Amino acid sequence: MKATVMYKSGDVRVEEVPGPVLVEPTDAIIRVTHACVCGSDLHPYHDLPDTPEGRRMGHEAIGVVEEVGDQVTALAPGDTVIVPFAWSDGTCPFCRDGITTSCVHGGFFDGAPSATQAEKLRIPYADGTAVVIPAGTDESLMPSLLTLSDVYLTGYHAAVQGQVGPGRTVTVIGDGAVGLSAVLASKQMGAKTIILMGRHTARTDLGRDFGATHVVAERGEEGVAKVLEITGGEGSHVVLEAVGHMPAYEQAYAVVRPGGVISRVGVPQYEDAPVGFTSLFGKNVTLTGGPATVRAYLEAVLPQVLDGTIDPGRVFDRELPLDDIAEGYRLMDSREALKVLIRP
Amino acid sequence: MKATVMYKSGDVRVEEVPGPVLVEPTDAIIRVTHACVCGSDLHPYHDLPDTPEGRRMGHEAIGVVEEVGDQVTALAPGDTVIVPFAWSDGTCPFCRDGITTSCVHGGFFDGAPSATQAEKLRIPYADGTAVVIPAGTDESLMPSLLTLSDVYLTGYHAAVQGQVGPGRTVTVIGDGAVGLSAVLASKQMGAKTIILMGRHTARTDLGRDFGATHVVAERGEEGVAKVLEITGGEGSHVVLEAVGHMPAYEQAYAVVRPGGVISRVGVPQYEDAPVGFTSLFGKNVTLTGGPATVRAYLEAVLPQVLDGTIDPGRVFDRELPLDDIAEGYRLMDSREALKVLIRP
Repeated sequence: MKATVMYKSGDVRVEEVPGPVLVEPTDAIIRVTHACVCGSDLHPYHDLPDTPEGRRMGHEAIGVVEEVGDQVTALAPGDTVIVPFAWSDGTCPFCRDGITTSCVHGGFFDGAPSATQAEKLRIPYADGTAVVIPAGTDESLMPSLLTLSDVYLTGYHAAVQGQVGPGRTVTVIGDGAVGLSAVLASKQMGAKTIILMGRHTARTDLGRDFGATHVVAERGEEGVAKVLEITGGEGSHVVLEAVGHMPAYEQAYAVVRPGGVISRVGVPQYEDAPVGFTSLFGKNVTLTGGPATVRAYLEAVLPQVLDGTIDPGRVFDRELPLDDIAEGYRLMDSREALKVLIRP
Repeated sequence: MKATVMYKSGDVRVEEVPGPVLVEPTDAIIRVTHACVCGSDLHPYHDLPDTPEGRRMGHEAIGVVEEVGDQVTALAPGDTVIVPFAWSDGTCPFCRDGITTSCVHGGFFDGAPSATQAEKLRIPYADGTAVVIPAGTDESLMPSLLTLSDVYLTGYHAAVQGQVGPGRTVTVIGDGAVGLSAVLASKQMGAKTIILMGRHTARTDLGRDFGATHVVAERGEEGVAKVLEITGGEGSHVVLEAVGHMPAYEQAYAVVRPGGVISRVGVPQYEDAPVGFTSLFGKNVTLTGGPATVRAYLEAVLPQVLDGTIDPGRVFDRELPLDDIAEGYRLMDSREALKVLIRP
């Protein structure tokens, strides 16, 4: 089968590789019908060192079940399923807490031996991991359903962890697909004021459609001043940080209101950061977030996509066949595309 | 009047200084009857550079009102009042949120021109700041009431911010007076398992009286291993960090359960700390805490002291006159005393 392999920064290839096989009785094999390129895929695209054995790419997918192991009961061949970016058994203490990304048997598809930017995928702990889409679901909903694999529910996770709710002022840092998803989720949760920090008009326009009440194009001190002005000098109750770089973190603690929450879902490209008296502690600011516990939210949010309440699939502005995925990476890296849907 | 002045690390003196006078119509002047030395006073005791003008010390007090400004209505001469470690107007947006330590007119007594380790004290925004103790309150309750100025409510703040509640496992790092207060508050909030990390038996014994179910004397990797063993390998839902040094922070993220909360009330003696994928983000850990919003809790907790439900004043194991306060600093620094009550 064909799969996407990255060999070093900027070097993405589609290659013929052995197809996946059932390894454990809890596995399922799917034929991937929809995959995509994630903003987080651009991190290795920028900095992956030479990797002669190659790194298998992709962690978002919808597909049709082809085979299941003996112990799989929730899926059957022919079912169309959504695959979260992390697998999880659904039964361990952390899964029961809803922290599915910390499952004791869990793992991340990104970089795993079987990843999603490929024709087929092996899903470990398939019962705990995959969620069946009702038979007969209209094809036009598939892009929005695919966002439940990661991007929309990552924005949603940011908002949940950030305690977004009615009356809150929310600032979203980053106008990528996750940031826009965070806007949409905040709107769903009743936020009163949603300030989107971003400078790409096509994206911030979609952000306004999703519910942003203000757009701040300025960055750094100017951007901070604008947010403070909009919030009457008081700062934002909630800041959703959807970038992962230090300047976004610094912007977050500069605009958050005393007693407020910074919720991060941009994978941090740093380990150490300011958390002392002058950044977080002095203002009683809460720092939260992490890898989205997509699987814990999926069944609750699925009906909102199926009934058209939300249309997070609007973040996809390009579609390419798997063979052209390198072009998809290039388009996203150059910001010519917001998010690229891949049809294996 | 006499007041405590620090001139450099280790140099604490009681000196004759001009008494405070009413400056603003919202001020009150009290005669301090009870003050104390705080663990956080030991930070400048260790590292204050030469300060020729001297630094006025102390931020916890009970006293009797002597004079009030024209606009003060909640206090009257003769009232006995508790003074939180920070003043606040009680009316600004942040006070209304309960984040009284971020009051737009607020400030900290520690290091201010009028601080509490003195015979008299000027209280700015007296109506917003001070809380009257009912007339006729028994003198024996004063040590516990004094802890509502800072130490008990700082432990309480840690527990509130850490979302301590029934069924939770709580690990308290630090067996100082704040750590022990955090144990007592966690017990009040229904925590099921309370693990106190500390190695001073006299202190951890009081911790057990306050509600600790386990004491871990080991530090570093050994201490982490012990906490993980007690929690069945899963980690602690909540970690209350009552020290403020980096090793305590590192211990906190090593023992916290995925999806758990680290709540800091030890004033951080660092600005940068690990917050990336391998420390907080990967496990979806929430980092919270800050200067305790004592004033926001005071009226709710006061009755629990008055009716004997809690006796946080047990953290005081020495009492000295103001003239001997330098000895109080020495006793606390050498850990011969847990917390020293001062009688000006």
